[in-house]
Amino acid sequence: MLPQPLLRGRRLLFGSAGMILLFTGRLAPLAAWVAPRPSPAPRNYLPQAFASLSSYSLGPFSASTRLDRRRTKGHARSRLFSSSTPRVSSPALETLREAIGRKGDEIRGLKVGGADKAALQPLVSELLDLKAQFEDVAGVPYDPPKGGGGKKQGAKNGGKQKTKLAAGDADEEEGVMKQHADRSSLAITPRDENYSQWYLDVIAAADLVDQSPVKGCMVIKPYGMALWDALRDELDKRIKANGAQNAYFPLFIPRSFLSKEAEHVEGFAKECAVVTHHRLCVDPAGGPGLVPDPSAQLEEPLIVRPTSETMIWNMFGKWITSHRDLPLKINQWANVVRWEMRTRPFLRSSEFLWQEGHTAHASREEAVGYARDQLDLYGNVCRDMLALPVVKGVKSASERFAGAEETFTIEALMQNGWALQSGTSHFLGQNFARAFDVDFQTAEGTRELVWATSWGVSTRLIGALVMTHSDDKGLVLPPSVAPVQVVVVPILKGAGSEEDDRTTAFMNTVASALRTQNVRVHVDNRANMRPGAKYFEWERKGVPIRLEIGPRDAAAGVVTLARRTGGAKETIPAGNTFGHVIQNELEACQSYLLEEAEKRVASHTYRVDAYVEMKERLAGGGREDIGFFLAPWKDDAVNEAAIKEDCRATIRCYPLDLNADPDRVQARKCFYSGEPATHIALFARAY
Amino acid sequence: MLPQPLLRGRRLLFGSAGMILLFTGRLAPLAAWVAPRPSPAPRNYLPQAFASLSSYSLGPFSASTRLDRRRTKGHARSRLFSSSTPRVSSPALETLREAIGRKGDEIRGLKVGGADKAALQPLVSELLDLKAQFEDVAGVPYDPPKGGGGKKQGAKNGGKQKTKLAAGDADEEEGVMKQHADRSSLAITPRDENYSQWYLDVIAAADLVDQSPVKGCMVIKPYGMALWDALRDELDKRIKANGAQNAYFPLFIPRSFLSKEAEHVEGFAKECAVVTHHRLCVDPAGGPGLVPDPSAQLEEPLIVRPTSETMIWNMFGKWITSHRDLPLKINQWANVVRWEMRTRPFLRSSEFLWQEGHTAHASREEAVGYARDQLDLYGNVCRDMLALPVVKGVKSASERFAGAEETFTIEALMQNGWALQSGTSHFLGQNFARAFDVDFQTAEGTRELVWATSWGVSTRLIGALVMTHSDDKGLVLPPSVAPVQVVVVPILKGAGSEEDDRTTAFMNTVASALRTQNVRVHVDNRANMRPGAKYFEWERKGVPIRLEIGPRDAAAGVVTLARRTGGAKETIPAGNTFGHVIQNELEACQSYLLEEAEKRVASHTYRVDAYVEMKERLAGGGREDIGFFLAPWKDDAVNEAAIKEDCRATIRCYPLDLNADPDRVQARKCFYSGEPATHIALFARAY
Repeated sequence: MLPQPLLRGRRLLFGSAGMILLFTGRLAPLAAWVAPRPSPAPRNYLPQAFASLSSYSLGPFSASTRLDRRRTKGHARSRLFSSSTPRVSSPALETLREAIGRKGDEIRGLKVGGADKAALQPLVSELLDLKAQFEDVAGVPYDPPKGGGGKKQGAKNGGKQKTKLAAGDADEEEGVMKQHADRSSLAITPRDENYSQWYLDVIAAADLVDQSPVKGCMVIKPYGMALWDALRDELDKRIKANGAQNAYFPLFIPRSFLSKEAEHVEGFAKECAVVTHHRLCVDPAGGPGLVPDPSAQLEEPLIVRPTSETMIWNMFGKWITSHRDLPLKINQWANVVRWEMRTRPFLRSSEFLWQEGHTAHASREEAVGYARDQLDLYGNVCRDMLALPVVKGVKSASERFAGAEETFTIEALMQNGWALQSGTSHFLGQNFARAFDVDFQTAEGTRELVWATSWGVSTRLIGALVMTHSDDKGLVLPPSVAPVQVVVVPILKGAGSEEDDRTTAFMNTVASALRTQNVRVHVDNRANMRPGAKYFEWERKGVPIRLEIGPRDAAAGVVTLARRTGGAKETIPAGNTFGHVIQNELEACQSYLLEEAEKRVASHTYRVDAYVEMKERLAGGGREDIGFFLAPWKDDAVNEAAIKEDCRATIRCYPLDLNADPDRVQARKCFYSGEPATHIALFARAY
Repeated sequence: MLPQPLLRGRRLLFGSAGMILLFTGRLAPLAAWVAPRPSPAPRNYLPQAFASLSSYSLGPFSASTRLDRRRTKGHARSRLFSSSTPRVSSPALETLREAIGRKGDEIRGLKVGGADKAALQPLVSELLDLKAQFEDVAGVPYDPPKGGGGKKQGAKNGGKQKTKLAAGDADEEEGVMKQHADRSSLAITPRDENYSQWYLDVIAAADLVDQSPVKGCMVIKPYGMALWDALRDELDKRIKANGAQNAYFPLFIPRSFLSKEAEHVEGFAKECAVVTHHRLCVDPAGGPGLVPDPSAQLEEPLIVRPTSETMIWNMFGKWITSHRDLPLKINQWANVVRWEMRTRPFLRSSEFLWQEGHTAHASREEAVGYARDQLDLYGNVCRDMLALPVVKGVKSASERFAGAEETFTIEALMQNGWALQSGTSHFLGQNFARAFDVDFQTAEGTRELVWATSWGVSTRLIGALVMTHSDDKGLVLPPSVAPVQVVVVPILKGAGSEEDDRTTAFMNTVASALRTQNVRVHVDNRANMRPGAKYFEWERKGVPIRLEIGPRDAAAGVVTLARRTGGAKETIPAGNTFGHVIQNELEACQSYLLEEAEKRVASHTYRVDAYVEMKERLAGGGREDIGFFLAPWKDDAVNEAAIKEDCRATIRCYPLDLNADPDRVQARKCFYSGEPATHIALFARAY
């Protein structure tokens, strides 16, 4: 365990309100004011009847009316699934149905005539667009007329038929696996049109999550889970290197614990899952099903942990006696529950996965230093794994974690100009030590309360990842975190020709060469699926590099390389240096994504000296016009609330670098009150 | 993803009751009948007032009266902590107090006189024994008289004093860190005396878990968590290699799901945590604290998952349409809750950690084969990581998982002759597919229900690990899973002499050499702690190899090696081959532990032809006398229940190897009914 370079090169500042700020580093180069551009003209688009995002809505899985895709199967579903909408009909829908039919015929005609994939792509896009419009109006996916769809839906299914999303059929052969059909049917709404829907569409297209039957709880599907696992592995390694050890604490918290730390209760105790019974029984009133057994009511209700400070501090009380027990550094990987009314996958869900670190220290300085180190760790992982640039700062009092003396935060800028709080590290002072009576005997024999930190990042980081790099074609993944870094797609004639055997053999050599270089490579050798459909799918899944290998490539010993980040395809010899060439490509991709993200932050960070500048830009702006606003600020909770009310922008943080020199800050005037500034504040609209 | 060698080399047997058994392999060599030895005479030991194991009891942390070690701190505790026992006094206790005082004086006298650690060890053991007896009678730890204990407890603590376990003081210097003092004060009850208490003592001495304030839920401390993390990493790798992908499903299950699969409900729905409210509020009746908000009652209660079959099968219904979607293989790492009335750390707790795998297949054969493969995977991980030999078998109908058609199991033999079910793999038939209406279109266009498996292992494996190898001195860890494989303890003169510097430098070289060989090495350079105390602690923590390095070792370029498994210390040159020598030692240790465990299973497996043989042995036996009983058996649930009632032995499994040849089995007579046998059954008492 390496000693931590605590508080190295930092200055400790005591603010006027007893606040502690730790500042480090130099002023970051940030773009100057960028003149507002006019908003793009609104597209002529049919009304989006179901564009509301107040609950999980994953494209076609979105609003509750779209949920029960399998209701024709006729079995009872959870009550949460029970609402359903009858098939909608209207003149607008009929017009759309006709347009979809015509476009489908046109594509099928061209395919029969031998048109190649590339030529069909624009028409397919138009078709998908029409179907998306249909679904937006109808609230249910487009359902092809039974005559034409019969052969596809399977006539032999014994009278049972699954309602199937059919939008992908122009792009698909008969019998293409349903999962793919579903995925390709999910049109991705362009960012400029509806950013929130774009986010949900990208997640659905990449197959990251699915909606669960429990309100606000997500199912993380394998591709999404692989992202979290990769992030978890790297975080775990670095957290351990930073001196913390993993442990595990109970899911349930006794209600009485929640009255210990007053502010903390205020922040968390309200919206939470409350366990009141420990048994189900047959309904004594004779109703169907099981009910909570009245004889099994808990004496004291249990809370499903929204965070584990109270539980862990209860245990720290048992474990800490002497200064020799300090520092104590514990990390936990866990699920937590915060009952949310408005949820969105990854960004805000009732249950989510996270790590929560909790430490106890002998001195204030050491604790603050550790909280800051942890913030740096998070910033580095965001950069190295997710190619995600963040602003490090400290929260204003009103945005602080319940029970903390200081909350440090990393704030990222999403493509819609909103901020996303991506991780926090709290200096808890002695609040929890006091509430749970955790003191220690010093080397001098006196007794003191310990000093505390806590810090966490969650599956929300996947949301940040999605919203930072992805484009209108789908997810874009940095190689560091990509479950598949390179996908290899063979172009085969079919019917097992000798040429195909040679192509396959060459392809396997190429894949092996990459595996020996520890490149995460996947060979997509699914039969019954055209290469173009595979390209389309992997593009939507954000795989950084695609290698196409056809018979001519195999004969020439080359591969055709396509980058997810765009640009012309390249032909690469698969010789001795091949593995290194691909590794360089992956590194270049990682750097490119980080640089692009940094450029976007720079060009969307506005230095404002007068409040009206921020307000006007926020009022007029599309996603290209808003972003981070840096302003000289006199710390004032009333003004902060007034600004939030007035233009929905909040102080995301006081950036550490920009506040490193208090003299420079205090020489400025608050952009709102005109009084001498206490901080440079970063304002933004935020998730 | 490699294709699985399904059903290779196995025979499919349809039993008379529609049961399917899969048999493989040859008859394992098992020891013949071993004549019963007389039980050891009971020791003259004071009555164990708190030896009850009906709830977590971790040595001194055990019964509720012992919990609130910090109650002198005077702050309000959870109601769960509120019971306390006044200081007990009795003639027996006074006698013990005197004996402890005398023994302590004796030890201190010898230490002042320069006696070395080894000479003191027997006396220290006696002292610990006396203190353990004291605690057993008093129900509270031995509390030294204030006069003598004052300097240790710290006079300057401002009137606040923590009740401190003081049993370790003979072995400790002043001011040795409290955590260590507490640990070393935990005397380990010998196995022969009270096996259950021994288990709890070993866990406490190794610092694996702590009791939490929530009934039946454990806190897994860092050293215990490191064991689970190591096991998890290896399992995760192999599960993925076997074709499954990780995903994550909600913690909560809608109550309505539990009525879907009738047998499954019967098995699980009863004792579970029921969430009924999603908010707390101030008590409207004016009481203190928060209460579940009556206006926030859930329409439908949610169950905290006891297992995720129902939730996952609900999702599989959305994901599976065609044979091309199959097989679908999902694994989840999760916490689950089963409300247990009688709990024991790792073995049975209300909340535990596990992985649960769930797969869907197109055919019965493939599903059964996958369930069997998974059983092999578990058996291999137990062997390779935990040095734990297991018997693979299939459960009788009455011991089957709720909702399964067949339950495969790995059963391990603990040192008390009891069996521990260590992992299960279920063939679920089409039960869940039927309940959740999950069918698929075959290649021929028909629709079929899918075939299912589920399989899991949990933190219970840590319990199996502890109970397989540990001895009366504490935990014994196989190197594969040991968080620390080699501990290095320097023997220093203190006061920073030049000789100490040379010893330290040499020690660091040795440790580096091991790290470069990927040996998990820890250097214990705590000051203020004697080498002997360190040896004692690491022995209790089960570290396989200890290297002692003193000035003479450093000068000669050698280390002194001590093995946790016993035997004489050895002097090893720390030259070029040193890393390999240590690696060989670790491998030898791993093999030795596995062989010893296999020998114990063999010598405690009894082949019985008449029921009375098993009954008598079980009735008369101590832990050396009972074990696994192999008997020819005619499958009969009534007789099975009668045997359980009569001698508390149950059918742990029908071992796969012993049942591979049905002709041989059927040639035998049931050891209970005398009718023709259907199986060779493995009976045992079980956790």
